[in-house]
Amino acid sequence: MRVHAYAAPAAGRPLAPTTIERRDVGPDDVLIEVEYAGICHSDIHTVNGDWGPQPFPVVPGHEIVGVVTEVGPRVTRHRVGDRVGVGCMVDSCGECANCRNGDEQYCLDGLVPTYAGTDRDGSTTQGGYSTHVVVDADFVLRVPDGIGPAAAAPLLCAGITTWSPLRRWGAGPGRRVAVVGLGGLGHMAVKLAHAMGAEVTVLSQSLKKQEDGLRLGADSYFATTDPDTFTQLAGRFHLIVNTVSATIDVDAYLSLLAVDGTLVNVGAPAEPLSLNAMSLIGGRRSYAGSMIGGIAETQEMLDFCAEHGIGAEVEVVPADRVNEAYERVLASDVRYRFVIDAATLR
Amino acid sequence: MRVHAYAAPAAGRPLAPTTIERRDVGPDDVLIEVEYAGICHSDIHTVNGDWGPQPFPVVPGHEIVGVVTEVGPRVTRHRVGDRVGVGCMVDSCGECANCRNGDEQYCLDGLVPTYAGTDRDGSTTQGGYSTHVVVDADFVLRVPDGIGPAAAAPLLCAGITTWSPLRRWGAGPGRRVAVVGLGGLGHMAVKLAHAMGAEVTVLSQSLKKQEDGLRLGADSYFATTDPDTFTQLAGRFHLIVNTVSATIDVDAYLSLLAVDGTLVNVGAPAEPLSLNAMSLIGGRRSYAGSMIGGIAETQEMLDFCAEHGIGAEVEVVPADRVNEAYERVLASDVRYRFVIDAATLR
Repeated sequence: MRVHAYAAPAAGRPLAPTTIERRDVGPDDVLIEVEYAGICHSDIHTVNGDWGPQPFPVVPGHEIVGVVTEVGPRVTRHRVGDRVGVGCMVDSCGECANCRNGDEQYCLDGLVPTYAGTDRDGSTTQGGYSTHVVVDADFVLRVPDGIGPAAAAPLLCAGITTWSPLRRWGAGPGRRVAVVGLGGLGHMAVKLAHAMGAEVTVLSQSLKKQEDGLRLGADSYFATTDPDTFTQLAGRFHLIVNTVSATIDVDAYLSLLAVDGTLVNVGAPAEPLSLNAMSLIGGRRSYAGSMIGGIAETQEMLDFCAEHGIGAEVEVVPADRVNEAYERVLASDVRYRFVIDAATLR
Repeated sequence: MRVHAYAAPAAGRPLAPTTIERRDVGPDDVLIEVEYAGICHSDIHTVNGDWGPQPFPVVPGHEIVGVVTEVGPRVTRHRVGDRVGVGCMVDSCGECANCRNGDEQYCLDGLVPTYAGTDRDGSTTQGGYSTHVVVDADFVLRVPDGIGPAAAAPLLCAGITTWSPLRRWGAGPGRRVAVVGLGGLGHMAVKLAHAMGAEVTVLSQSLKKQEDGLRLGADSYFATTDPDTFTQLAGRFHLIVNTVSATIDVDAYLSLLAVDGTLVNVGAPAEPLSLNAMSLIGGRRSYAGSMIGGIAETQEMLDFCAEHGIGAEVEVVPADRVNEAYERVLASDVRYRFVIDAATLR
């Protein structure tokens, strides 16, 4: 099956319309007609070659929402007409300890990423900036009624990436949670932590987006460029979710944690980080990392979002404005996620 | 009350016999006739001035075991004749959130260290290298029958420092725990983790103490100078307790953790540490720190040790060999803790 797509032909080159081949629907596969595909910062890193050589042409997109149009004979989880989603991975070994624990993202055999990865059959995976995808049913999520499809797309990466650490480290009533950075990931972290019942503080470089932050669910908002912030909030938080990939002063952020508090990075700075062990020891604090989430917890997140009326704040763009959207993402000029209308790819 | 003691007169100077004043037994105080006082590496750091200026003369010693010889009128927890212990702290505010949680070691008002600290009355605290100490009853632990008093002394610092992270991060049946370094702290970590039911691995620079390690309860023993160790044990451990204060390659140790594993430092390297955020993110791993433990958990540890017949491996020395013992600690020439026989101070 030949389908329309937008691909980066080479590292750093603008994306352009193309067609790609999708495999036949196998016994365990689902064919999805894509409605919306979110633009994640990592799409840009990948096609720019920031993360090393890639199997160009690359069709990015791992925040995919669409409708099932065909299912393989062994598929029971999804039916034609269902609204579904696909996130950052499309397969894993299913047999290692991590897969068996529902942590497919940490598959010991290596997860199969939604694009620019090597699929089980040896072919290169191609992502959601296309009219259709064929995905193993186990890696296809149900998108419940109650979330619009465009607003649901970013949940498949930005949503689960923040949901997983919030759940794991216990955001909820009586817990003070800080979110560092109010971008695509950060705005989801604010919405989710607020809905979980935590007291939410945004720590952003400036107060530029303060009004937005409070509207999205934050209880307070501080500028990290103001040194008073670190004095005023010392020892305050049970959990800090750092969504910023730039290098941070880890010790300064650790000093904001209460005893037993955890600072979790969901973004990976390119450079090594420096920290003083006393920042951890002096309050039994932890510095942790978290990467997307497993399939079952992604479904749990989607169900929670539907129940609480949560979606991403999106700006829908036609496919021919993808390159412009990339520029604006790099300039932090988006509130808070671009989503490509896949109808414009046809 | 004037009592015999051994004190460092100035930074880097040998310890020498002296006498010091102990306060009158207040209504909440306990007077303890010291039997044994352990020699902790931090005693040496303190008197050598490695940790900044100190209120010399300093009487070190925060691993104290002795017998109660007098109690204040309001004391109900301890009686004359009881065998008791005192660890790294002798007071805290008792009112902050951390004290109320039993985490007196993280008292927001600052704990009062057993020596070289400022007591509530403004005087300088003096430690256990002396014939007697007077301590608030709330900071005095019961040493149960079943642990010899010399072997019990190091439990008050080395024991609780390793117990607390082992308990908090769940050493027990089905859990694979690594202990980095087989010194005073490390050998306690091995004994405790083994008694808790965990599978214990020692990671030591060489295999020099392998036989000892296995005898103390380790299931396996690896040399960290052998690069194969890091390949062979990749992703293996649920918990690594790092008892070494030297700078380590944090990323290398994090790579030994399974998903959700935690590396805990109980020693504080002087220099900042460097780590790659991907080492955390790639397995939802944590890098944490832990400092001694609260009073209630110290009692829990002592009771556990009595029940399981656990004490430190000690070499008892007379007071006039303290300086020689310090040299040997610095040369790692002790298996595994020196303990001063306080009878030799009189």
